Amino acid sequence: MADQLISSIDAGRAARLLARQNVKSAPGGSTAGCVLGNVVIMPEIVAGEFLQFCMRNPQPCPLLAFSSPGVPRLPDLGADLDIRTDIMRYRIWRDGEVAAEVSDILDVWRDDLVTFVLGCSFSFDHLLMQEGIPVRYIEEGTAAPAYITSLPTNPAGRFRGPLVVAMRPLVAAHAIRAIQISSRYPSAHGAPIHIGSPDLIGIDDLEKPDFGASLTVKDDELPVFWACGATPQAVIAASKIPFCITHGATAMLATDLSINKMAIL
Amino acid sequence: MADQLISSIDAGRAARLLARQNVKSAPGGSTAGCVLGNVVIMPEIVAGEFLQFCMRNPQPCPLLAFSSPGVPRLPDLGADLDIRTDIMRYRIWRDGEVAAEVSDILDVWRDDLVTFVLGCSFSFDHLLMQEGIPVRYIEEGTAAPAYITSLPTNPAGRFRGPLVVAMRPLVAAHAIRAIQISSRYPSAHGAPIHIGSPDLIGIDDLEKPDFGASLTVKDDELPVFWACGATPQAVIAASKIPFCITHGATAMLATDLSINKMAIL
Repeated sequence: MADQLISSIDAGRAARLLARQNVKSAPGGSTAGCVLGNVVIMPEIVAGEFLQFCMRNPQPCPLLAFSSPGVPRLPDLGADLDIRTDIMRYRIWRDGEVAAEVSDILDVWRDDLVTFVLGCSFSFDHLLMQEGIPVRYIEEGTAAPAYITSLPTNPAGRFRGPLVVAMRPLVAAHAIRAIQISSRYPSAHGAPIHIGSPDLIGIDDLEKPDFGASLTVKDDELPVFWACGATPQAVIAASKIPFCITHGATAMLATDLSINKMAIL
Repeated sequence: MADQLISSIDAGRAARLLARQNVKSAPGGSTAGCVLGNVVIMPEIVAGEFLQFCMRNPQPCPLLAFSSPGVPRLPDLGADLDIRTDIMRYRIWRDGEVAAEVSDILDVWRDDLVTFVLGCSFSFDHLLMQEGIPVRYIEEGTAAPAYITSLPTNPAGRFRGPLVVAMRPLVAAHAIRAIQISSRYPSAHGAPIHIGSPDLIGIDDLEKPDFGASLTVKDDELPVFWACGATPQAVIAASKIPFCITHGATAMLATDLSINKMAIL
């Protein structure tokens, strides 16, 4: 256990250092063992409403930590962590649209910004692979496909919009085992929210994800859909939030937390 | 907890008394709270091999208890239990075929017969219903559909043959929750073994079950397949066992055990 903790701290810190130096590294499962986080940075004036939104939508928005206003540190997630530099790519949002993609946010940092870090299902991919369950987006070296669904989130204040889901194609026996495994990690979105027909949750075409790259679902596989940490980005767009910052596609924050220690049972 | 135990003892004993008096009662979920058992009665000469078969196939054959040869009592499952009378219908098997269906086995009882009681997924149906998950075979008052699959069991001695599965049609969200709930009860077959396309496990026509009555799978539902305690009957047929006795269709043994106490976590 001590070994695992040390290695997740090392893995998380190493991934953050690469991001800080803007050295490109692979997303997702590459940082095996450490918890990855979806990042949302909001002005203090809307931070309370966004916190309420997370509380009301724990499956897409499992809150791992949030900062004090203006403080770019999140010591619970990494002693050296600086949220202004430690992500590979950031999206600057204005009025619900991506105004810029940047590699750090030192220039736009403000003393009223509050950082929220939400869990990410990529955190448990290596646990699936350890049990012999192939995770195709990792095998293919692409970004997991994610889709804006017809399912609404529970609104809070000005935050309202659709649920986004990430899809993994799995044969049935692996899907059943993946449900068991992911159920142990509610802080990484927990169990899937749907399995089977995409059209039942408003996905018209599996080959056209709204985020990430498409993956083939083979004849003997089922598409399995987990609530996704890209949900806040869809909500930011739908709610036309005047100003905020998120991580860029597949550029989640690597934390020092060990996924093994996040299991609820 | 004490209340639940008392009520499962009462429910189990009441169901056995009805069977003893050959008063017809509803199968499955009607005996809410008490563990139901699939029953296989074998001559001592093959009992060791059958026990090995159960050990090698814990998902279809989760062993709850077995008797001493010639002893018709199973005190661990019910103080007053007499396996010769306490099931509503019995099947007498000869050379792998059903030679007779009878309402007690007092006439054919022998001093070399060993009784095996295996768990049954009907035990957790009321737990599904308590969470608002409809169980259609109970709603429709029929016997759950079960199918002989193309999946082999693990053989032991002369026992070999196909896996039998029971099917429940569920919408995806309920299927995911049912996987979580049933995973807690390995002694009642545990998690499903398949979900989705029936043809992947050798089921050609869902409307023609090998046991029980057919149920419609609606457009927004998935068929979910659990390993079934009818598997020994398919194996007895395939292995052409010279003589044995099982329970008849839907006539499982009601025990005093409380399903609530069988949860592994």
